[in-house]
Amino acid sequence: MAAEGTKEAIWHGGDLATAQALFPQAPEPWIDLSTGINPISYPLPELPLSLWQRLPGKVDEAALHAAARRAYRIRSESGLVAAPGTQILIELLPRLVPAANVAVLGPTYGEHAPAWRRAGATVREIDDLAEIGGANVVVLVNPNNPDGRVVAQQRLVELAGTLAARGGLLVVDEAFADFAPESSLLPIVPEGALVLRSFGKAYGLAGLRLGFAVGETRFTNALQAMLGPWAVAGPALHVGAVALGDAQWLSAAGEARAADSRRLDTLLAPHGRVVGGTVLYRLIETPQAPALFERLGRVGIYVRRFQHDPSRLRFGLPGDEAAWSRLAQALMPA
Amino acid sequence: MAAEGTKEAIWHGGDLATAQALFPQAPEPWIDLSTGINPISYPLPELPLSLWQRLPGKVDEAALHAAARRAYRIRSESGLVAAPGTQILIELLPRLVPAANVAVLGPTYGEHAPAWRRAGATVREIDDLAEIGGANVVVLVNPNNPDGRVVAQQRLVELAGTLAARGGLLVVDEAFADFAPESSLLPIVPEGALVLRSFGKAYGLAGLRLGFAVGETRFTNALQAMLGPWAVAGPALHVGAVALGDAQWLSAAGEARAADSRRLDTLLAPHGRVVGGTVLYRLIETPQAPALFERLGRVGIYVRRFQHDPSRLRFGLPGDEAAWSRLAQALMPA
Repeated sequence: MAAEGTKEAIWHGGDLATAQALFPQAPEPWIDLSTGINPISYPLPELPLSLWQRLPGKVDEAALHAAARRAYRIRSESGLVAAPGTQILIELLPRLVPAANVAVLGPTYGEHAPAWRRAGATVREIDDLAEIGGANVVVLVNPNNPDGRVVAQQRLVELAGTLAARGGLLVVDEAFADFAPESSLLPIVPEGALVLRSFGKAYGLAGLRLGFAVGETRFTNALQAMLGPWAVAGPALHVGAVALGDAQWLSAAGEARAADSRRLDTLLAPHGRVVGGTVLYRLIETPQAPALFERLGRVGIYVRRFQHDPSRLRFGLPGDEAAWSRLAQALMPA
Repeated sequence: MAAEGTKEAIWHGGDLATAQALFPQAPEPWIDLSTGINPISYPLPELPLSLWQRLPGKVDEAALHAAARRAYRIRSESGLVAAPGTQILIELLPRLVPAANVAVLGPTYGEHAPAWRRAGATVREIDDLAEIGGANVVVLVNPNNPDGRVVAQQRLVELAGTLAARGGLLVVDEAFADFAPESSLLPIVPEGALVLRSFGKAYGLAGLRLGFAVGETRFTNALQAMLGPWAVAGPALHVGAVALGDAQWLSAAGEARAADSRRLDTLLAPHGRVVGGTVLYRLIETPQAPALFERLGRVGIYVRRFQHDPSRLRFGLPGDEAAWSRLAQALMPA
């Protein structure tokens, strides 16, 4: 994990400039399957100009909070804080607990471990929650990115209790839980746990920058104080409130993406073992992964590879029939 | 300054819910003169849907950086980091220097001192830069909010040198420097100085959330690492790049707002001494300030009062002739 110490070394999906640099001869437009973002986004509501002009007000923020509490089924006792994306929350989390001994359940999203390291914590990546040892902070993504692994609620409640007794914290990043609500800890959020939610992935609006933390009010109040007033942009407050209030859209999108992910599995099956994922992305394992990455890149299809496991590739969902058809063609036996 | 220790106690302009609660009988619509935000905003460019959907990319960010460097006349040697508003930068600044002894040149914007206090620093508010004593960090707003005080560039360069020698930092918040470019430290930014710029005020788009820090690359790289990837929303990257590239608009807006501020001074003169301000707000001093705040509030005009100096009121600029006329009528001798 040494490479994670420097920012530049962390790979992410979603930046086509990287794909273009790797494959300058590829045909345009690129099909970007390198992220786990819903390719069919929530339809943007009308945005009054005043949302851009005014400082975001308490009324707008209250409307977003109310919609988030309903959509995420947050207990009334839990605190809630909204932020311009979960990334900044990840950076601020280390300030919630004293000097930390951190276990990150890996492999997972690459930004958690370095944020704790920057704050001076000792960080280990573990493969199994049985290995937490003396850690007072445990971080996991649930369902996990990239493999979709889900840790059961009861196990999380026990773990939060253990860490609370150590004066620590269980961080559960539910960036991909919108379409798997049964996996969410939000209806519970026991003492010692803090849950992160990401708006942009399920709603296909990652450029908006909106995320949440939910947990004990001592944690969420501290995060709110660090973020200061007006943390979330006016348009993001409004779009978030409208979209999170639309349970019907989420339910229909979940069904459509589940069908898409089954269709994707069928295309991927001849190329490797589908080892996991969520309805927004699928992970395959094959010794041919580097060759497949190249083959797809040369025809303008960008998928996600992994620094620490060259045998894996993650595929996001194509967003229209043209993209499906180009992917199907690229994956046809040579 | 004890009241600043708690978030709730800091007053800000711009939240009409507060005005409505104070004056529930006031006629609608309210005229909000409680902020220093340009009431005539930069015309929003067309925003492609992809800006909302994609994670903000390196190309969009590079375009914003290039526009900011030209608009703010930033030296090529200086580092630059963009953030979702300067507020979050203010919160992160204490992590750039070891245990700090901070002097804030006051009275000024209320969020600087508490951010340093939250990080464990010792904070004093000083009236004059001669009083910095053993401080290793000095924070000032230039031109100052609310009184428009400007510290000369040469004085700032000397001060940055003194603090650099102490391993410290001079923070110059230039939130209101867009229409007073001659006051800006950006063409220099000496060692030991970090300059903050706020996009939303001059361009009248405070809901967008966009701010910058400029200084030594060791500072800006550290801030960038803390903010993580995708700190600024896609639409904000694009609007910022377009607006900061439009020098003609800024120049015309500066002239128009200067004329507006002279017009405002004329209206205010019978009610108090205009003790300062910028072209976006004027500060008056009068023992009648609390009575004037009430009188304006009752007719639906919200201005900015100050917790620690009840003899002052700050007036932002009306945004249209209807607002000017209601203000003129409200300020007519009774």
